This record gives sequence, structure tokens and C-alpha cells, in this order.
Amino acid sequence: MSLKQYSEEMLPEIEKELQSQVKRLDDPHTHPFHEMLTYHMGWTGEGAGPDAAGKRIRPLLLLLAAASCGADWQSALPAAAAVELLHNFSLVHDDVQDNSDKRRGRPTVWAKWGVPMAINVGDTLFVLSNQATMDLIKSHPASIVVRAAAILHDSCLDLTRGQFMDMSYEERNDLTIEDYWPMIGGKTSALLAACTHIGALLGNAKNEIQENYRQFGYHLGMAFQIQDDILGIWGEESITGKSAASDLVEGKNSLPVLYALGKKGKFAQLWNQGPIKANEVKAVAAQLEREGAREYANEMSLKETGEALGFLEEANPEGLAGEAIIELANKLLKREQ
Amino acid sequence: MSLKQYSEEMLPEIEKELQSQVKRLDDPHTHPFHEMLTYHMGWTGEGAGPDAAGKRIRPLLLLLAAASCGADWQSALPAAAAVELLHNFSLVHDDVQDNSDKRRGRPTVWAKWGVPMAINVGDTLFVLSNQATMDLIKSHPASIVVRAAAILHDSCLDLTRGQFMDMSYEERNDLTIEDYWPMIGGKTSALLAACTHIGALLGNAKNEIQENYRQFGYHLGMAFQIQDDILGIWGEESITGKSAASDLVEGKNSLPVLYALGKKGKFAQLWNQGPIKANEVKAVAAQLEREGAREYANEMSLKETGEALGFLEEANPEGLAGEAIIELANKLLKREQ
Repeated sequence: MSLKQYSEEMLPEIEKELQSQVKRLDDPHTHPFHEMLTYHMGWTGEGAGPDAAGKRIRPLLLLLAAASCGADWQSALPAAAAVELLHNFSLVHDDVQDNSDKRRGRPTVWAKWGVPMAINVGDTLFVLSNQATMDLIKSHPASIVVRAAAILHDSCLDLTRGQFMDMSYEERNDLTIEDYWPMIGGKTSALLAACTHIGALLGNAKNEIQENYRQFGYHLGMAFQIQDDILGIWGEESITGKSAASDLVEGKNSLPVLYALGKKGKFAQLWNQGPIKANEVKAVAAQLEREGAREYANEMSLKETGEALGFLEEANPEGLAGEAIIELANKLLKREQ
Repeated sequence: MSLKQYSEEMLPEIEKELQSQVKRLDDPHTHPFHEMLTYHMGWTGEGAGPDAAGKRIRPLLLLLAAASCGADWQSALPAAAAVELLHNFSLVHDDVQDNSDKRRGRPTVWAKWGVPMAINVGDTLFVLSNQATMDLIKSHPASIVVRAAAILHDSCLDLTRGQFMDMSYEERNDLTIEDYWPMIGGKTSALLAACTHIGALLGNAKNEIQENYRQFGYHLGMAFQIQDDILGIWGEESITGKSAASDLVEGKNSLPVLYALGKKGKFAQLWNQGPIKANEVKAVAAQLEREGAREYANEMSLKETGEALGFLEEANPEGLAGEAIIELANKLLKREQ
């Protein structure tokens, strides 16, 4: 069975589980509140549908990790819902923090209902993630549930740390490449590592194998983020679905930028003078490339990709689900193809 | 041993546990972030000290519930920290949502570090609460840890529901007394119910006794909130520590207000005309009293107080800790004395 077949089987089940978890909120006093969550999840409102929902990569990774350890993936569905709800909690708060009024082509929760409500919607997605995790008790021993929850909570602390770093970097002008890794490790990789780790845990894998899955998820996140950073500066609009080079205008502390800031050359001078304007983007991107930032980022992306695939190979994923998770990893790691 | 002696023994241990839980955040990349949390918890910054920290009533209730079921309260400390961290998460977000720039006499987190950071500080207190809960595994069976976490998560969903209602009421002019109970049940009582419930659970109480403790906490919260509402309109500044009648100026949907709104009389007319001004407060409070709102609120407070003490009696708390929890309940329920 290929990734396509697994996806076709798993994605509707993930959606069903997510809907049943979010349903907890729906009571006569809180209908409009429930709607705010179903809107954000992509199920209701103008533009609802798969594009508004996102790709559900995290739950898919978790389920494929469990299945490739030989487990019945259905019993891992509450955990799959938990990681997706957690991811969405972070998106809702992120949009407020970044003042972003669009996500996946639609107005963000705060743009529709205001900041106070959006904070509460994010909080609630977090609560629902916690509750979904505890639902694992229906099909797993309590000790495994506690372990899964602890892994998820730890990744969440890393997430808030990464978020702090990202926000605090906006105030600083002494950043170097060393500031990149812990930020992105927290913001992107920690949760992906938790997904593959929990999948392996629920798949009854040995500790050593669990660790391989965890490392696979972690480096997958790093590689994915670096590629995202490269595309954000040098990508074609048609590939990324957003205006190429917009990361420069937005002042994002991406890998190429932090690499070049550490060089304290012409780019650093330009960057520290204030926001890059849209008409300067081409020249600034070219300057970045001349200073070696693109080449360095490509190297790091290849390095992290190698690590990710290496750990996945070490994990020795079983059967058709094993083939599917390798296929998913390759797909995620070669987005430009 | 009296409440005073228990408090003197427990409060320093609660503080120590809280500090060790918050310490998870402290790494070389996140020192200033750790400081935002220690500031909010009342340990650092200008004005740090017991007044800035608050009374730690929730952890105290939890530990006394555990002890009055005959348990060693020390082993329940991680849960005590968890409920206090959860409470503080909700305060940090609440201050953003209400645009309140002062808490316990000091600038709020958002007032000091901005809204985006404050959202993240609140999120982090929530994560730390989750992590503290999982620490129960050091001294309790996994099945009990899962049960404690589920109780806490459920109360947290009620909290977000109550928060939604509170915020959405600001837009409405058709409110009645029926809208009060679910809001306050979520915002105030749910977490107090979780405290006494989890205390009894960790104290190995039977289900029936656990339920009595839970109901005690729930009604304690209701009575406490109603009293707070009464004091917010008719209280003396010297008792409440805030300007008397400020709830009317702030437009708070308190019990007396919702009671009178349901009457659709003169008060409702005044209220729906727009914000009450400071110089109108005395007259509006007198009008509220004439419409029976004060008497009704007093009745409800007495009713809830009776329920709280009745359930506590049913729970039959043991020994000196039992005497102490009864003393604490009486103290909380008779704040004006």
C-alpha cells in the first residue's frame, strides 16, 4: 500500500476524530464559540474545505509511525488529534502575535472575532489537545498514556521557548547563526519529534527505536524549516503559494538572514538599517546569495535531510506503512520537485 | 493543628514546588522569559513578595482535601502546583482580554512586556501546569495520574467556556439571571471543584467521597463569586482593597446586575444606555438595591454557602486537616467578617 492509499484511509479518520474532540465544546451556551473553532479547523465558514484545513501532516506522521512499528493505527487516533489540535492552538496564538490577518487564504480568528476571543480559541484548542491525549486511556495502559502526555507537554515547552526566542529576536541586532537552531528546534522540530516519538511509543517500539523515530521527526522538522526559509527568499511564487521573497520584507529571522548577519558585511548593514522595502528585495536577495547565505542554507538542508532519513532507516520501519512513511519523508524533504 | 499551622507548613512547600516547576524554563536562551514568569508569580521584580503572589488558595484547598482524606499531602504537591499554575495562566490571559494593566498592585505582564509576550507567558504557565500534573507519576499509580489530569483538563474546558460567555455577554443586551450560572460555574467554580476533587482522589477517597469534595469546591466557588459580586457593588473599599462600586463602572455582568436586567425595569434602562459614570454609581447602586438585587444576591450567597458546607460535612473530612479545611471554608465564605 502506498502513501496515497494510507493517506486516503487515514485522513478521513483523522478528520472524524478531530471533529469528535472539538464537539466537546458544543453546548447550548457556546454554539458561536464552537463555530470559531470549526472555522479555524477549516470545516465551516466561507472558504471551508481541505485547503482551509491544511495538510494534517503531524497526525499523518504519528499514525504512520505507529503503523510502521506494527501497531493498529486506529487506536492511536486520539493522539493524532492531540498533536493537530496542539499545532492549531499555536497557529491561532501565532497569528495574534504576528498580527497576521490571513491564514490559508482566509481571515484569521483574531481578524474575524478580535484578539480576546482569539486568545480564548487558542487556549481551548490546547485544552482539547490535552483531553484528546487522555482519551488514549480507552485503548492503552495508563503508563503509556502518561508517557505520551509527558512527551507532548515537553515538546510544548520547547514550542513556547522557540516562540519567545522568535519574538525577542525582533528587538536584537546582535543575532548570529547560533541563535537560529534553538529557535527553530522549538518552533518547528519539537512537535514533529513528538509526533514520530509518540507514534513509535503507541506502536510498542523499544526505547532505542522510539529514539530513532524521535530523531527522524526532529531532523525532518529542521530540514523542512530550512527549505521553507530558502523558498521564502528565493522560491517561485508558484511553488510556495505566497509572494517570493516576502520573508525579507517581513523581517523574518530565517537561516540565510542569520547566517549573513553573523558575517557583519553589507547585508547586515542593510538589514540593520530598517525594514527591507518590496522594491529592494531582488537586490537584497542577490546580496545575501553573494555572501554565501544561499549555499550555506542548502548545505544545512542537505545535512538535516540526511540525518532525518538516516534515523528513519535506523528505525527500520516495517511493512507497507514503513514504505509509506519513507515516501512521506521524501515528499516533505523535496518540496521543490 | 489549626488552619494557621497547616498554612504555615504548606505554603512554603507550595512555593518551593511552584518554583521548581517554573525552573524548567530557565536555560541560557530563555533567562528573560523565565523572569517574566517569576515576575507574574510574585517572586521577582518591583513589589515582589506575598502580596504580589496572591493567597495560593487553590493549592491549599487541594492539599487540605488530600490530608483530610488521610493522605500524605507532600506527595500531592505537584498537583497543588498544577492548579496554581493553571489559575495563573488564566489570569495572564484574562488581563490581556480585559485590558487590565494592574494586578495585585503591580503592572500586568502585557503592560510590562506587550500582548504577544503575555500570550506566550500564559501559554507557558499552562504547559508547566500540564508538566507538573505528570510529575504525580513519581508517587502515584499511572491510572490515578491520568484521572487527575482528566479532571483538570475538564475543568479547564469549563474555564474557557466561562471566559467565552463572559466576553460574549459584552455584546448582548438580553441577559438574564440564567446567563449568570454557567458563566461563573466555568470561570470560578470549575477549577475550585477540580482542586478539592483531585485532593480527594490523591487522598485515595472512595468515589462517593470524591464527589462530595468536588461539590464542596464547586459551591464554595459559587458562594465566593457571589460575595465578590456583592462587595464589588456595595462593599467598603477597606474590605475589598479596590474602589467600591467599581464593578458598575466597569460594566461587569455580576449577579446583582443580571438579576436586575432580567426585571427589565429602571436599572435595565440605565444599564443599557451605556457605561455607568463614577458620579452615577451611588444612585445606580441604590436603584439596584430597590429592585431587590442585593437581597436576591445575599439569598443566593447563603444558599451556595449552605450547599458548600453541607457537601463538606457529607465528605466527613478526617482529623486535624479536616478541622483546618472546615476553617478555611468558613474563612473564605465569610469574607466580610
